[in-house]
Amino acid sequence: MERQQAVAGEIEAVRAQASAARQAARWLARTTTATRDRLLRAMAEALEEAAGPILDANREDTASAAGRPPAFRDRLALDERRLAAMGESLQQVAALPDPLGRGEGWVRPNGLRIRKVRVPLGVVGLIYEARPNVTAEAAALALKAGNAILLRGGSEAHRSNRAVVEALRAGAVTAGAPPDVVNLLPPGRESARALMVTPGLVDVLIPRGGPELIRAVVAEARVPVIETGAGNCHTYVHQDADLEMALRIAVNAKTQRPAVCNAMETLLVHRDAAPAFLPRLGDAMREKGVTLRGCPETRRHLPWAEEATEADWATEYLDLILAVRVVDDLDQALAHIARYTTGHSEAIVTRSLEAAHRFQQEVDAAVVYVNASTRFTDGGEFGLGAEVGISTQKLHARGPMGLEALTTVRFLVEGEGQVR
Amino acid sequence: MERQQAVAGEIEAVRAQASAARQAARWLARTTTATRDRLLRAMAEALEEAAGPILDANREDTASAAGRPPAFRDRLALDERRLAAMGESLQQVAALPDPLGRGEGWVRPNGLRIRKVRVPLGVVGLIYEARPNVTAEAAALALKAGNAILLRGGSEAHRSNRAVVEALRAGAVTAGAPPDVVNLLPPGRESARALMVTPGLVDVLIPRGGPELIRAVVAEARVPVIETGAGNCHTYVHQDADLEMALRIAVNAKTQRPAVCNAMETLLVHRDAAPAFLPRLGDAMREKGVTLRGCPETRRHLPWAEEATEADWATEYLDLILAVRVVDDLDQALAHIARYTTGHSEAIVTRSLEAAHRFQQEVDAAVVYVNASTRFTDGGEFGLGAEVGISTQKLHARGPMGLEALTTVRFLVEGEGQVR
Repeated sequence: MERQQAVAGEIEAVRAQASAARQAARWLARTTTATRDRLLRAMAEALEEAAGPILDANREDTASAAGRPPAFRDRLALDERRLAAMGESLQQVAALPDPLGRGEGWVRPNGLRIRKVRVPLGVVGLIYEARPNVTAEAAALALKAGNAILLRGGSEAHRSNRAVVEALRAGAVTAGAPPDVVNLLPPGRESARALMVTPGLVDVLIPRGGPELIRAVVAEARVPVIETGAGNCHTYVHQDADLEMALRIAVNAKTQRPAVCNAMETLLVHRDAAPAFLPRLGDAMREKGVTLRGCPETRRHLPWAEEATEADWATEYLDLILAVRVVDDLDQALAHIARYTTGHSEAIVTRSLEAAHRFQQEVDAAVVYVNASTRFTDGGEFGLGAEVGISTQKLHARGPMGLEALTTVRFLVEGEGQVR
Repeated sequence: MERQQAVAGEIEAVRAQASAARQAARWLARTTTATRDRLLRAMAEALEEAAGPILDANREDTASAAGRPPAFRDRLALDERRLAAMGESLQQVAALPDPLGRGEGWVRPNGLRIRKVRVPLGVVGLIYEARPNVTAEAAALALKAGNAILLRGGSEAHRSNRAVVEALRAGAVTAGAPPDVVNLLPPGRESARALMVTPGLVDVLIPRGGPELIRAVVAEARVPVIETGAGNCHTYVHQDADLEMALRIAVNAKTQRPAVCNAMETLLVHRDAAPAFLPRLGDAMREKGVTLRGCPETRRHLPWAEEATEADWATEYLDLILAVRVVDDLDQALAHIARYTTGHSEAIVTRSLEAAHRFQQEVDAAVVYVNASTRFTDGGEFGLGAEVGISTQKLHARGPMGLEALTTVRFLVEGEGQVR
């Protein structure tokens, strides 16, 4: 009974905050670029002023997380440098070009003037894990694109998030904006569920975090979602590849930052390239501490590699582990990728124009590389300005998303009494 | 037990057809514009050749539907003229510009060459009602954009759909294409459910039909959906409107074709315009056989109008019925629309630049009109070439959709061994 009341209370809180965010979104829809940029700068200053309370709250969060793994605690922890970076990111987003208002226009034979322009989505929902720096950064991106935001962060970071959001809301008020442009939801399970299953609370829901979180949101959501980040990325070394280049790309794609979604998880090697390439690959990977899991043919060349099972081809390790398979030809490489890709980033290393063209035409992924590391799939590396995330879905936005992913279009039509 | 076996069989059939469509989509991804256009023309010819069997099948369908309302039977019935129009629509789609391959490119400071190009979505699913002409038209649009299609039409039209799809598949074979570019699913409930809830069968699911069908698909689907067609459209007559123009627009928006989604359902009238406008509106609407449902203030001017209840403001009549409300000012009109809009098409009639600007900036709908009828919301009227449907969602596509809505993007990146 008490549990039921708590659940009902949490859902009620989400509805009330969503309604307040909707009002604030209407206010934002009427603002100019200059007003929104001023708002972001005021928030950056407010963050700086609230450094004391934010760091205090964060110390409580990190103390409670004492039993968690070091990587978890590192993501959770704030210090003065990280707090300054948070404020800096708000200033950087303020300095980006405005994604709103751009568009095209034409006139119809009957004189109707049609413009198709970029407008805000309205209310953006974000479900994320225990990384308090995401709180400010996501709010900045949403506001820049004219949207109010509902933030539902991990419970372990709730004290930190509350302190950050209080500062952002204080900054909003200083800038003459309604504080409800930024809202922090209760950290319980019910608030996430309410966001996911209640139509109309948010115009888009973005999960940001590990594969488990993303899978859960995509499976449960009844509202529009932008799916980000699952990356079972392949690199295929064709028979004619420059093996020096292939080695450099493979080592970079696997080891430069193994825990991120654009890291390589499976290497495919053409049968004719295997004898010369695999021993060198084995040495280089062993030196970097990478465990290899190979098909039988791979293990003929690298007997120390572990045996790969069917599950390995489908696994996003996010770790210093690499699956390796020898394939008969480009067709088999394409078939392997078609079966196991998550549609994120795939690469071929080749000297052949024909192989490169077929690979780019036939691989169904957001980003398809020829002779480069999959690690480049990133808004910054692509020159998009801001990085909203990397979409692995096909509708709305695909691949590295700029601010435009947080907007929609509206047709504005003007006439002098035209009828059909 | 038998029922269970039938259900299992239907789901198995859908999976097998989806798998065949996926193979055909890979073939389509490798085709040129010329090949796809030739395919559409071969299908048009095959339709013509199969006129006899198609009309026979349709006669069986219409005979079985003898007990249905005339409007239903009219949508179901084919004759030689309608069949010719079906073939003509395939030829017209073939003649449209190809939406694929277009894009932009840039070079990064490290020399990486990035292109962002339009590519097919893959497999499109369509759930629709008993209109056999939709079968050929939807297939043509999907194929033009390089997609295979899974069609799940209403059971009452199944014999007609089967004959049409057989012809289209025969045309595909003539043109050297795999027949599985077009697939007709069993008409049972389970096939629709399997399409909606099984991830990976289709890349997008489009419901086409009445509000009930669309609501059901949006509520149940676990795969990406493009929501089309729900239109609770308003027209607001501001205090300074040209009343002659307002009358012309209102009569057109309500009566020119009341059963479609861009028809007006509620008229809002500024208090100061009501005494001069409402009596003229009443006369004009009565002449057209329109029933009015008014707020108390409306009924002061038009005592014969029925009393509007809360439910009327939220109802898409799709009929010769109009809800009418007198509002105090633009703010109240905006608040009413914000509460009841389905985000389709909204209009203001005014001479005021300021009122027009506020209305276009603040109304959150796909199309916002100044001094024109909401009836213009249509791909053809907007000059988009093809009409894939009218999206009332904000992600991916909004408003009248051209062929681009059936595509996605891919980033193609080329380098000479770049690493991070």
